[in-house]
Order: sequence, then structure tokens, then C-alpha cells
Amino acid sequence: VSDRLPRFDADHTADAAAARRAFLRERTGVDLEQVGGTSIDPAQFEGNVEAYVGTAQVPLGVAGPLLVDGEHAHGEFYVPMATTEGTLVASYNRGMKLLRAAGGVRTTIVQDRMQRAPVFVFEDARRAREFGAWLESVFDDLVAAAATTTSSGVLRDVQQFGLGPMRYCRFNYTTGDAAGQNMTGKATAAACAWAVQHSPVPVAHFQLEGGLATDKKASQMNMLHTRGKRVVAEALIPSALVEEQMRVTAAQLFRARLIGMAGANLAGANNNGAHSANGITALFIACGQDVANVAEASTAYVFGELRGDAYYYSITIPSLIVATYGGGTRQGTARECLQLLGCDGAGHVGKFAEIVAATVLCGELSLGSAVVADEWVSSHDRLGRNR
Amino acid sequence: VSDRLPRFDADHTADAAAARRAFLRERTGVDLEQVGGTSIDPAQFEGNVEAYVGTAQVPLGVAGPLLVDGEHAHGEFYVPMATTEGTLVASYNRGMKLLRAAGGVRTTIVQDRMQRAPVFVFEDARRAREFGAWLESVFDDLVAAAATTTSSGVLRDVQQFGLGPMRYCRFNYTTGDAAGQNMTGKATAAACAWAVQHSPVPVAHFQLEGGLATDKKASQMNMLHTRGKRVVAEALIPSALVEEQMRVTAAQLFRARLIGMAGANLAGANNNGAHSANGITALFIACGQDVANVAEASTAYVFGELRGDAYYYSITIPSLIVATYGGGTRQGTARECLQLLGCDGAGHVGKFAEIVAATVLCGELSLGSAVVADEWVSSHDRLGRNR
Amino acid sequence: VSDRLPRFDADHTADAAAARRAFLRERTGVDLEQVGGTSIDPAQFEGNVEAYVGTAQVPLGVAGPLLVDGEHAHGEFYVPMATTEGTLVASYNRGMKLLRAAGGVRTTIVQDRMQRAPVFVFEDARRAREFGAWLESVFDDLVAAAATTTSSGVLRDVQQFGLGPMRYCRFNYTTGDAAGQNMTGKATAAACAWAVQHSPVPVAHFQLEGGLATDKKASQMNMLHTRGKRVVAEALIPSALVEEQMRVTAAQLFRARLIGMAGANLAGANNNGAHSANGITALFIACGQDVANVAEASTAYVFGELRGDAYYYSITIPSLIVATYGGGTRQGTARECLQLLGCDGAGHVGKFAEIVAATVLCGELSLGSAVVADEWVSSHDRLGRNR
Amino acid sequence: VSDRLPRFDADHTADAAAARRAFLRERTGVDLEQVGGTSIDPAQFEGNVEAYVGTAQVPLGVAGPLLVDGEHAHGEFYVPMATTEGTLVASYNRGMKLLRAAGGVRTTIVQDRMQRAPVFVFEDARRAREFGAWLESVFDDLVAAAATTTSSGVLRDVQQFGLGPMRYCRFNYTTGDAAGQNMTGKATAAACAWAVQHSPVPVAHFQLEGGLATDKKASQMNMLHTRGKRVVAEALIPSALVEEQMRVTAAQLFRARLIGMAGANLAGANNNGAHSANGITALFIACGQDVANVAEASTAYVFGELRGDAYYYSITIPSLIVATYGGGTRQGTARECLQLLGCDGAGHVGKFAEIVAATVLCGELSLGSAVVADEWVSSHDRLGRNR
Repeated sequence: VSDRLPRFDADHTADAAAARRAFLRERTGVDLEQVGGTSIDPAQFEGNVEAYVGTAQVPLGVAGPLLVDGEHAHGEFYVPMATTEGTLVASYNRGMKLLRAAGGVRTTIVQDRMQRAPVFVFEDARRAREFGAWLESVFDDLVAAAATTTSSGVLRDVQQFGLGPMRYCRFNYTTGDAAGQNMTGKATAAACAWAVQHSPVPVAHFQLEGGLATDKKASQMNMLHTRGKRVVAEALIPSALVEEQMRVTAAQLFRARLIGMAGANLAGANNNGAHSANGITALFIACGQDVANVAEASTAYVFGELRGDAYYYSITIPSLIVATYGGGTRQGTARECLQLLGCDGAGHVGKFAEIVAATVLCGELSLGSAVVADEWVSSHDRLGRNR
Repeated sequence: VSDRLPRFDADHTADAAAARRAFLRERTGVDLEQVGGTSIDPAQFEGNVEAYVGTAQVPLGVAGPLLVDGEHAHGEFYVPMATTEGTLVASYNRGMKLLRAAGGVRTTIVQDRMQRAPVFVFEDARRAREFGAWLESVFDDLVAAAATTTSSGVLRDVQQFGLGPMRYCRFNYTTGDAAGQNMTGKATAAACAWAVQHSPVPVAHFQLEGGLATDKKASQMNMLHTRGKRVVAEALIPSALVEEQMRVTAAQLFRARLIGMAGANLAGANNNGAHSANGITALFIACGQDVANVAEASTAYVFGELRGDAYYYSITIPSLIVATYGGGTRQGTARECLQLLGCDGAGHVGKFAEIVAATVLCGELSLGSAVVADEWVSSHDRLGRNR
Repeated sequence: VSDRLPRFDADHTADAAAARRAFLRERTGVDLEQVGGTSIDPAQFEGNVEAYVGTAQVPLGVAGPLLVDGEHAHGEFYVPMATTEGTLVASYNRGMKLLRAAGGVRTTIVQDRMQRAPVFVFEDARRAREFGAWLESVFDDLVAAAATTTSSGVLRDVQQFGLGPMRYCRFNYTTGDAAGQNMTGKATAAACAWAVQHSPVPVAHFQLEGGLATDKKASQMNMLHTRGKRVVAEALIPSALVEEQMRVTAAQLFRARLIGMAGANLAGANNNGAHSANGITALFIACGQDVANVAEASTAYVFGELRGDAYYYSITIPSLIVATYGGGTRQGTARECLQLLGCDGAGHVGKFAEIVAATVLCGELSLGSAVVADEWVSSHDRLGRNR
Repeated sequence: VSDRLPRFDADHTADAAAARRAFLRERTGVDLEQVGGTSIDPAQFEGNVEAYVGTAQVPLGVAGPLLVDGEHAHGEFYVPMATTEGTLVASYNRGMKLLRAAGGVRTTIVQDRMQRAPVFVFEDARRAREFGAWLESVFDDLVAAAATTTSSGVLRDVQQFGLGPMRYCRFNYTTGDAAGQNMTGKATAAACAWAVQHSPVPVAHFQLEGGLATDKKASQMNMLHTRGKRVVAEALIPSALVEEQMRVTAAQLFRARLIGMAGANLAGANNNGAHSANGITALFIACGQDVANVAEASTAYVFGELRGDAYYYSITIPSLIVATYGGGTRQGTARECLQLLGCDGAGHVGKFAEIVAATVLCGELSLGSAVVADEWVSSHDRLGRNR
């Protein structure tokens, strides 16, 4: 008898899932009853998972209305958030109320690029440099080679970084409405195969990923050079409104900001704000995104200042990776959540990115205010369970 | 008519959820049918979410058997992974097969602490230093004050960092089987209230969080000083086995490691390995963890070396935040997944942490080998959908 | 005939120096006439240099008076600065004038420690952890072993960091008036020899330096945990005074600060201020310090805020390594410069550290104001040469 | 009577220097006799220093011969090193001996650029992005405006980074044989004046330096994008030679490397090698460089690997700022030291950069070997004084 789960790879049917659950029950004595109790047709998950046994269910709350003044997202939205952290939905909701009263959140996608980062290794640094100069000269050929693998991804530029005998690269693409990690992988593989074959300098060693894409990692690289969408959400909030709704003054909020920024620097953190990962994760689970990208998406820079009688507040999320079709977005609950936001299917990725960023800004102001107002611990007590 | 969702805060009943979905349908025209179609009793989610409307469903696959040689986890496990990234479960499964043949993954929790990081601000640096010296002298009083708020959390030490007129602290606790973010928040609030009241130096300003906990953020601080569990997973793999199963030599793997490490450094990444966030996220969603902690948990350091005829390979995850009771672990599918691992309820948090770390190591070897063997793009093509 | 310089190692006499210069003249045709033209007795340099041929001469200017309100440094000082960067002395001088009018610079040494950071390697992480627990339990023995090598250095604590099968440590010492790098090296070697011999767990490999001292490097470690002196210099400057002397308003300065801090974060810089390395280097060369420590000493955090009608401004230098006896401080010009500051010989290291920090603060305000006032380029034009 | 030094600004004569020393003697009782005892004509220091009083003298040793196989530096060099750290010259000398026997150090300048990094602030992020697109479209105009201020500096490209309402830029230049900090400052000021005047989007605020040049700071930015010269020094050393001369095996050296690299990562250091700042500082002081640039130049990445029977070893120094004319290079001892290397005057900056990098590599191998061979503490004892 094999220890391996039956029909491991390809079979996304209710029967196969049941067979696997039965196998696990036999081995462990545990019934995956609720896991198996999903109403969603397993065929929807083809290509998303192997050895499928059912679904994990994460409770979903809705915050809003969120008022967005973006280029892709306009108007009010009810935001689905899948989370088990008590008070989280309430906290974001409170920030949405404040910023709605302030006229909404302005959102802007300031850069957009997805990448794969191959590395070429040579006998020495001189050959690496020579290769680099050549690679720059054949950019059009790389674009053509990359284009043989994808119709929606376009190679925009290739960054180079010399280190020892290596030439690290970042192949940057626009990828349409897909997140594009796989698309860029294939395109870069094709472009590099061409490069290795035609290089005037012998390539001693080649790796499709040299570590500079920082896929599923936080990095200064992404802070500087974007991965996915680089989105800014910002608002100008009358100080009186802050005080009325948050029970703190704008000056208090700003001072807490300064002190928190210093702390984030001292800690060497990838985010000088409050908790953007919370909102992003909740939206990602709800909307069928690749949730592991929270590693990258958790990076942020908050910049605020007092402007006369108002508090200007912004957050820049430099590596927000989102998609509105393909991957996990096609299936049951994810699709419904995207529909709720008017973001289901091709053509909506910018809109979705803006809604995510606007949501995040609301959460920053809400938690930031709570920390200052000393409400923080007590609100967790009231709404959340002790952990 | 209010724009606010009906019965926002507290009501975790099927009726309330239905009323909210009806409200959303009226406003947006979107039916949250699948979201509402969960078989789980909403009462299970009390304290986990507000404005509950149903559940997000994430497809669940199972990899394994994973062989663990830990202090808390012994033997073989079938690992539930909730993800929509095609090939992910298969890739982890492949690594589990390799390391099972190699005798399993050795796991060790080398440190364990959860923290809240308050900051005290003074008129100048000299007063801040004076306060710091005093705070160190009253450590027992801080412990006592913290203890009034929790029976399972124990204040172990207080780190101090002087910056300008501020004294940043990290209050470090052990928290039993809970993740402990809220527990440490309350305990630290109590301890600091005592400190502010008794301080011989006037405290100009106090904030319960000064940014050094780096909650929901990646940081050098956590890499150095741990947040949650610091776990090492390691294995010694015969080179012949590597070559047989992964179609690459140990020397090739190691060289790719060196080059990838250099790339990670160049990029300023919080992780020099392959994709630990993938395995962690999939397990976190399956098992009802606070998934936003992927921001912290994505930090890792891989250390490998050739030892004679074997490849020694290890990963250190310095900020793995997990829980086996409370929070999101009580509900339907999460509980089943924890049960599948024998980790449901109090007393199992170490076991669960070790299983997570062991899983991660398998994924590192599998993806690392695939990159070297050039299988990577093609396996995504075969198993995953284009994105 | 040997290619090696004659009498390489030990001979610090005018004759030996002349012989070496003659050798070089013969080999290269270059006369080191000015290098050899020093009036300082070569014997003074014994122990400081090998293959001595003369001295490098760096032009020295003096800025001041600098008004310091420290714990070790009180009153006014004329500050010797060795530099070839035109406008540098003038710029620092301008800041000294401003802060003197504002009542002087308040300085505080908030922490003081020098370290060596050995690493112990084991078969696996579990043994490493076991060793770590044992090491903590024998702290008194380590202190005793370290004390056999030095009378002025005292081992204060040992920090531990687990990574893979390694146990990285930082042995922290107070070192009196010496910088202490060598003293702590010897003491740690002795303590570790004892530990390796007595360890209940076999140590597979030991290295006296594992990389965590970050000697001659900038690091987050030093920002957090201090190397040498951690000094804060701060001042409260009436806004009217700023405007009168610097031709910018305090609000303008502060805003430029916010923007510069964001830039420093974006760049991943080890210093969010203006140019502290300039003042530190000029003082280090003048006063016979180990100038390579600029690598560490260049780290800084500037924290400023508007406080009513005044601008509060501070700089924290977390890794300022200085000495007032031993090393390069005994020789001719260095000794004179230390004397000028009343810092020559034992008992003055705190005073010297405070003067350095106070000088740095003056330079920050001066350059910061110039950038805002657009004077920067033009002042370089007037005083400096084109480069 | 004024407290200010007489004839502060412009007067570089022996008389003025004497008057200032007299003033200081009167105020402090300290005679700057040795400082004043220089044989160098003060007029040589015009434009390099203000309030000149004499020179600081730093003892100078010479190491070598250093065998360089570069593109600009060929053959053997005797390297002047100004330092007071005992054993330093001897240690570098030992490395030079090893690498000479191994066939020399291969050096390559892989990138060359100097920058000024202005920032433009707008009402919101959208305007900032619009400005950025426009700025890219007028690159030729920026080049032309920059060119009005310099004949040797050429604007090569402008990098942009969006953050909140700001547009941070890096204006990258080639600067001929000058280090170029001032030249690029003036050129960027001119280019930005043009940009602010012609921008279709109103610029709310402009700063010539926004923090991204990281002048006199270590940064990830410079590691990625170079400041000054990016130089690689590398060597392939027969293992037998390593063992014979360094009393350690190549395998031991390599393993220590791996462990030291992990330590450097853990510490968040800007350099994973041993002590490159030592050699760079000693050469910088000797050769009249801007020594404060050690803050940047201390950044390095060491990459080594075992290649069959040889040890491949390289160091990449990404921000080495050097000059061979202008600034401090014209004066007495600096000029002699540059002459000793055949690097005095225009046309030699590449040669000098390569010699610095080659020297550094020798020092890395020497100290690295000593740490492994446990000679480290004892050699300091023999040659250096206790500190």
C-alpha cells in the first residue's frame, strides 16, 4: 500500500477529493468533513492546486462604504475582508468613515512592472561586463525572443548589476491584467536562451532566477524599483474632522508618526506604517489573490505632514501584486468578492489595486489614531477574543 | 437609509449574515451566494470578524507524508495546504519525498518570545537615559504589573534602545500556546502605566507601540531578536540521493545557493532562500492562523554546505507566529486541518511550528533543484494555468 | 636583490625610513621628499605602522568656538579639523555660531560598549541551542577568563543569536579610555578558549570573529546595540534665531528634514542626516583616531521636531569609536590637537566623544540650512575649488 | 576682542596660520608646534581648508610589491598607507605577497557614475507622476542645461522613484578624472532650474538633494547603482599556495567565508568581508582623497568559491570615490604618494581605483586567513601596541 495520496496530480473531481479524504481518515482518524463540505465544483480549481481535498473556509466580513477618488476606481465600495483577527474589519471600517467624510481617498498607480531576474556567471568580472554591454545592445532581440512566449506581456527594460564574476539582471515587463509571475518567467527563459546562445562571451553558468526578483520576499529592491503595482493612496483631512471622529488631534497623530518612523528605522523594518499587511491579506484571501505575495506587499512607506488646518497623509505600496483574472480569481467565492467590487475579469486590475491601497490607508489612520488615543487595547478587548 | 451594513458589530447569526448579503445585493447587484453557502455555523466566528457575511473558500490540497524528527513533532504528517498557485502542493510534495528518503527533517525551536514595544519620550536624551536605568532597576515591578493582566504570558526581559530624546523598549514575553499579540499588548500597557506613574523622571509622552515590535512587518530586528518562534529545520542529504531524485548534483545546488545568496544581498531581501512564504501561507490559511503574519514569517536565512558526500541544508525562520487555540483556530475547516496534524488545541504549538518549518525546508529544496534543473518553467506549464 | 622594502617590520628610526625611501626612489624614480620631511621623531610611531617612510600631511583648519553643554565636556572649544574639502570648516563654523547663540549643544553618552563577536558551530541547531544555554549559565567564568588578559576591559554581557547550526555571540565590554578593539579581541579569545574546552557539547568549529562585531562596517546591529560610544547631541533653537542666521525658517528646515528622511529610507542609507561623516573624519584625522572607523561612525539618526517657537534638533551617533590614549593618539600633531580640546590622555574619552558629537550637530544644521536656502552650490563655488 | 579665529576664510599664508596658532595659544595655552612645523607651502591648500593652522601628520608605511593585472594598472606597485593601526601595513603586505605568487590581482571597473539626487514635491502623487513622465521626455534639455556648467561632466541618465507626492531622482554623470561631487551638484542645479521653470506641472517644492545620492553614507542604493567607481578585484589562488603561505587550507578559508557571510547578514552589515575600510582609508589619507568617503567606500561584497584545486576570491566595491587631480591631490605628500603609484594628475583615476581595489583584496585574504589560523590576536600582540 502506498503512502502517497491517491490520484495526486491532476484529478479535480468530487470523487477524487473524497477518495483522498478517505485515505487521510484511514491514516489519521481525522474526518475532513467541513473541508469536504464545500458547495464549489472542484473543476473550478483545476490548475490551482494538486491533491485537492476540499476548501479552507475563512470568515468574511464587509467594511465600507469606502470612497475612492482614483483613476480606475471611482465612487463607493463595500470591501470584503477575510480574516480571523477580531476588530480588524471594524477598525478599517472606522477609517473608511473618516476618509469618506474627508472627501475620499485619492489613489494613483505610479509604476507597474513585473519581473524575472536571471543571472549570468562568467570566468571573471571583465567578461561579465563585456556581456553586459552586449546584452544592452541586443535589447530588441531580447524583446522579440520574450514575445514568442506571451501576447500580453511586454519586456520594457533590462536592469543590470555587476557583482564579482556575475551579471545579475532584472527583466521588467508589463503584464496586462495578470499578476504575471509565470508569464515573465517563461518570457525571460526564452530571452535568456537566445542570449546564452548568441553571446560573444562564453556564459559559464546561467540561472533563470538569481535572487533579484525577490519573489515572495520583502526587499529594498522592490521598494526602489517596484514589483507589480506601485500605488500611492493619499488624503487631506481637516484637522477638526480628525479630532471629532478619532478623538485625537492631527498634531498628536503627526507626532506619533515621527516617533513611529524613527522606531521603524531603528528596527530595520520594511514598513514605517501601522499594519498594511492586515488589510491587504484580508482582501487577498477574499478575492483569490496569491496570498503569499503578502511577503512583498507588506512593504510600505507612510508620508504625512501637517498642512495648515489639515493633515496630509499618504501611503506608498511599492510592490502590490494583484490580478483580476486567471489564477485563483476564477473560483466561487473569490469571483463573487471581485464582483462585489466591480473588479471581476480582465480590464479591472488597476481598479482593484486602487481599492486595495485606499483600504490600506483607512486602516493606517484608524490604528494610528487608536494607538494615540489609548483605545487600542480596550477595543481589542471588546470586539476580539483573548488570544 | 443608512449606507452602513446592517447589524455591523456583534451579531454572528445566519440571519444577520443574510441581511447583510441582501443589503449588498441591493446596493451592488451582486449575490454572495457561494460566500453565504458555507456549512459552518456563524457562531464559530464570534470574536474573529465583524459584519460577517459568509466565508471565503480557498482550495485545499494535501502534501506528504512529511517525515519530521523534531522535539515536539515526531513521525509522518500529511500537510494541508490552501493555495491557488498551481504546482505549489506538488513541489512541496516532491521535497517531502526527497527528505523522507534522507531520514527526515530535523527541527528545533531555538527561541520563543512575543513582544510589544512601547516608547517613552523625554525632554532630552539625558532624562531618557536616566529613565532607562531606573526601568532596569524595577524589572520585578514590571513583571508583577504585567502579570495582573494574564495568567499564561510571562514578561521575560525588557530591551532598551536610546535614540534622541526617546527610550524605545521591547517587552519580551513567553505566551504559552497562544500567538500572544493581544496578551502582550495588554500586559505591556499595564506595566507601562505603572512605569509612567512611578518614574522618577517625568515622561513627556508615551506610546504603547513605538515601532520596534514590527508587528506585521519584516525587520532586521526580528531576524536578530525573534518574534514568535525561531525555528531551524535542517537535513543532511546524501549527494547520490539528491542526484537520483532531483536530477541535479549537490555541488550544483550548492553553487546555485551561493549565487542566490549574493543576489538576495544585492537586493536587500529579507530572505536568502527560495520561497518559504509559499508554504507558510498555504499552511496558515489551512490552519486558521493570522495570515497577515506572513509579513514577518517570510523572513528566513538558508545556510547550506557540502559535507563530504552529503549536502547539509538548513533554514532558520526567526519570526514564525503560530497558535493552536484561540483566534482563528477554533472554526470548522481550520480545526480539521490542525487535527489532521495532531495539533488541535493547547499544548501543540511547538509541534505545529516544527511541522511548518519542516514543510518549508522541503519546498526550498524542491524549488531550488527545479531552478537548477531548468524544470521550473516547464513544470508550471504542465500543472499550473497561465497567468 | 629583494623586492621587499628594507627593514620592513620593526625599525622606527630616521635611518630606516630614509633607507626605505631610497629603495623606493631607486625602484620608482619618485622622491618622497615631503613625506620624509616631517619633524616628528619616528620613534613616536612605533607600534602604529610598519615599513615607515615618513608622514602624510593633511591640512588642518580650526572651527569654533563650539559651545558644549555635556556631562564630560563643558564650555567652549576650538575644534581642529583635518580635511581637504573646501568649505567644510567654514560650514561647521557657521553651525557652531548658530548653536552657540542658541545656548550650546547638549551632549549625552547614552551607552558605551566595545565587542568581539565569536561564533561557535555545531553538528546541528539543537546542539547549538544547548551550548547557548550552557554558555549563559557560565557567564561568571567567562568574565574571569576574559579578565586574565586585561585590567581595564570588563566583560559586561554576552548576546546570543541562533542561526542554523551556529551560535553567533557578541561579547560586550567596557574598555575605559581605550577604543578597545584589540583588548576585547584578546579577552574574548581567552573566554572562548575556556568555553570551547569546558563545553558539554562538542564544538565542531570556532571562529573568533563571526561577523557580528561589524568592525569597520556600518550595520543595523550597531545602530541597535552600539559599538563604542552611543552619543546624542541635541539643541533647542529659537525659530527666530534660525531665520536670522540661516536665512531659512524652522518650518522650512523641518519640512526638508521629512523629505530627506524619506529619501534616506528609500535609499536604504545608514544615516538619515546630512553629512556627519565629514566632521567625524576631519576630527579623527586631526586627533589620531583610527580613521577607518568612519565606516561605523558614519551611521546616524537625526530626529527633529517643531516645539512651539523653537526647533528641536538631535543626532544620535550609535557607533562612535574614539580613544584619547594609546594607538595613534600619542604622536606629534594628534597629541597637540587633543590638547587643544583638553582631551589628551586617560580620563578624557567621554569629553572627546561629546565634542565630536556636538561638532557633528553643528554641521548638520549648517548644511541642512544651506540645501534649503539654495546656497549650497554657490558656497562651494566661492570657497572650494572645482573638482 | 572677538572669539573668532583671525583671518578665518581665505588667507592661506604662513603668517595667517601663525596668527591663528597664536590666537589659539592665547586662548587655550596649547602650542600647535608640530602642526605648524610642516614644510609644505600653505598656498598649496587654498580651496581645501579654511582657518588653516598647519597640518595633521599621519605616519606612512609602504606595502608591496602589489602585482596588478588591470585594464589601467599593470605591473607592480609599492603602496603608501597612512595609518596608526599597528599590523595593518604588515597584514596587507602579507596578502600582496600571496597574490603576487598567485599571478596577481585582476581588476575591472565595471561601472562609473557620480550623482546628485534632487527631489521635486507636488500637491499629490498624480502630479508627481505626470512630472516624471515629462522629465523623461525632456532628457536632452536636461543634458544641455547640465552641460552649461561643466566641460568634463556628462549627464548620462536620470533615475526616478515615486514616493507619496514626491518624485525623487538620481542624476547620474560621468565626471572624468575628478571625483565629481561638486561638479554634479552644479550641473544638477542648472538642469533642475530649467526643469522647475519649464515643468507643465507646478512644482510645490524643490530640493537639490533629497537623500538618494547618499553622499558620505553607506546605502543599498549605492550597492545597487554605484557611486564613483564600481570595481571588482579578483584572483584565482592555487590551494597549495594558500596552504603554504597562509597556514590554512582553501577549504577552511571558504568555510569561514560562509560563516562570516551569514554573520554579516544577521548583523545587517554593509560589507560581508573582513576589513576593506582599513586599506581604503590608509590609501585615501596617503593620496589626498576625500577621506569621509570611507562611509561609502566601506561597502563591499566578497564572493568566493572553491574551483577545483584553486580558491577563487573576489571583492566588489560598488562605491569607490577617487580622484587624481583637484581637491586634496595637489598638495605635498598626497602628490608624492600618487606619484609613487604613477597616478598623479589627469588620466590616472582608473589606474588608482584599480590599485585601491587590488590592495583591498590582499588585505581580505590576509586577515581572513589570520582569523582562521588563530594568529590574529597574537600578531596584534607582536606588532601593535596594546590599546
